Amino acid sequence: MLETVRWITAEGKILSRCEEGVDLLPGKLRLIDQTLLPQELVFIETDDLEEIFDAILRLCVRGAPAIGCAAALGLAAVAQHIKAESIEEFTDKVQVVADRLAQSRPTAVNLFWALDKCCAHLRRCAVKSADNMRLTLIREGLEILDEDIRMCRAIGEHGRDLIQHGMGVMTHCNAGALATGDFGTALSPMYAAHEAGRSFTVYSDETRPLLQGSRLTAWELSRAGIDVVTICDNMAAQVMKEGKIDLVIVGSDRIAANGDIANKIGTYGLAILAKHHNIPFYVAAPYSTIDTSLEHGDLIPIENRDPEEVRNFGARRTAPEEVRVYNPAFDVTPHELIAGIITESGLHRPPFSFN
Amino acid sequence: MLETVRWITAEGKILSRCEEGVDLLPGKLRLIDQTLLPQELVFIETDDLEEIFDAILRLCVRGAPAIGCAAALGLAAVAQHIKAESIEEFTDKVQVVADRLAQSRPTAVNLFWALDKCCAHLRRCAVKSADNMRLTLIREGLEILDEDIRMCRAIGEHGRDLIQHGMGVMTHCNAGALATGDFGTALSPMYAAHEAGRSFTVYSDETRPLLQGSRLTAWELSRAGIDVVTICDNMAAQVMKEGKIDLVIVGSDRIAANGDIANKIGTYGLAILAKHHNIPFYVAAPYSTIDTSLEHGDLIPIENRDPEEVRNFGARRTAPEEVRVYNPAFDVTPHELIAGIITESGLHRPPFSFN
Repeated sequence: MLETVRWITAEGKILSRCEEGVDLLPGKLRLIDQTLLPQELVFIETDDLEEIFDAILRLCVRGAPAIGCAAALGLAAVAQHIKAESIEEFTDKVQVVADRLAQSRPTAVNLFWALDKCCAHLRRCAVKSADNMRLTLIREGLEILDEDIRMCRAIGEHGRDLIQHGMGVMTHCNAGALATGDFGTALSPMYAAHEAGRSFTVYSDETRPLLQGSRLTAWELSRAGIDVVTICDNMAAQVMKEGKIDLVIVGSDRIAANGDIANKIGTYGLAILAKHHNIPFYVAAPYSTIDTSLEHGDLIPIENRDPEEVRNFGARRTAPEEVRVYNPAFDVTPHELIAGIITESGLHRPPFSFN
Repeated sequence: MLETVRWITAEGKILSRCEEGVDLLPGKLRLIDQTLLPQELVFIETDDLEEIFDAILRLCVRGAPAIGCAAALGLAAVAQHIKAESIEEFTDKVQVVADRLAQSRPTAVNLFWALDKCCAHLRRCAVKSADNMRLTLIREGLEILDEDIRMCRAIGEHGRDLIQHGMGVMTHCNAGALATGDFGTALSPMYAAHEAGRSFTVYSDETRPLLQGSRLTAWELSRAGIDVVTICDNMAAQVMKEGKIDLVIVGSDRIAANGDIANKIGTYGLAILAKHHNIPFYVAAPYSTIDTSLEHGDLIPIENRDPEEVRNFGARRTAPEEVRVYNPAFDVTPHELIAGIITESGLHRPPFSFN
């Protein structure tokens, strides 16, 4: 499996959980620099605050679960250099580091959640030396990562049998190993079906404007030996019409109590196309994605992003500078279009009612 | 109006038809180099066979009607240098030039049609000197261009009143001035409504993989003073859901007798999304696009293009080299999804039955 976010010890041991008899201290955060994919697989290993801040800011690590893991292990890595006269001073300085990291992606809920969890844990625990506090932070970070891995695997198990031998599966954006600590969410049933020896084909939408589908999903699936075909977003309907698709699985950033889901722009259109072709449309996400305070999906705010993402591609201008651009980052798919929501707690079928 | 394809005389007069008292000979083919858009508006003026061949090959000129006009006027330009002892030798040498130009885009039906028309005309007519034959070719080329311009304007008139003040109109790819000698086909009703003083907003899909929507449609509409917003293809459903779209107008490459239409990949999906949101979906094309020998759209062959168009963008690789790509260039929209087909002969409403 891809080691998107890990802890690396001074002896070079790469960890996804605490292991008996392994020296955790000193160590570093280790992550894949996703900005270089699919051309190069390069790992960043660092315990430097500004490098970690920059890695999150520049999307070297992305995907809500992976960002949470990277922030927690990043905090633990930076904490090793913190010098303090007292336990209180140490705790305060950790908080300053956490506050700085929290500013790297101001809309990433998992980032705040993970940093808060670590700082709260530190304040609660009874350790009395700085080194013990440093160890506590590493253990807490690894616990967050391990929990994420277990979540991914459980989603994979609950969704695996949707994918049978010879099927075609469509997905959008990247809700895979590169977005989490392990098998991903939407891609986890695919990895699980592949492990079960089934062969099938994944059609991966390239997902404009940032192309996470062609750059990341196609890369990670083909690397795992899964047959994958990249298409432009506007080819999905034609591929469905040709009878190549048996089901669609996508991830989600936020799920309302009634089962409406927010996900990367293009998901809603894909769900309509799937319905038109009588293809079941599934959503896979951690249970924590369900926000029961939201009665329905229209209450989920949609972020509009920089027009320059659409006007340019790399160094090349693709639309006239003076032309207006509309660039919503997400859309909301109403529950009527969804055949099932897969979380670590099981495969939920409609009518959905989360609370 | 954009002068996508024109004749330019030695005195620098730019012509779209024969004008009384204007010296046509010598002269050159003049066209916009569309490969440089939207960054630069550069015109190519040439009477050199290989330059004209190259301009068609490299898509400096594209769009079926514009290619036909460029080939006819290109043939006339090259014919000025043809030296021959007899009328028969001259005619044979013109045919050799036409055969060469026909190889520049081997799937462009309008290219063959225009070249055949010019050569046949030359053989039929009674002129007895080489200079008269040269003039005949220029006149025939200008006649093809003028006919194209009248076709565009007629489509614009028949479609104009679909677009009322304050509306939102969606289009896909480029079936505009840059694809024809004048107002275009799908964009012609928009230019006509704009001339009638109505203000409205056009949402232009960027149209992957070659981005004709953002590079060309957005450029030509904004240059004409029409309000245009560029979106990625996968944003169309969201824009429709927000109530921003009142109608969709697209072009077509081929129309079957029952009203099924082939057009740029993504058109079929857009038609499904329009139906889901109760938005009328119109097609605009020259009447010559209707191929009554095809009973329905499934008989229209779909061209698959080079995977590298999807794997790369400019100099940048966007999908792993080893990953498979599916790149159909067109799709077929069944007539059930179409509210009307606009040709120079009028606005045809369902049930469609062309013969």
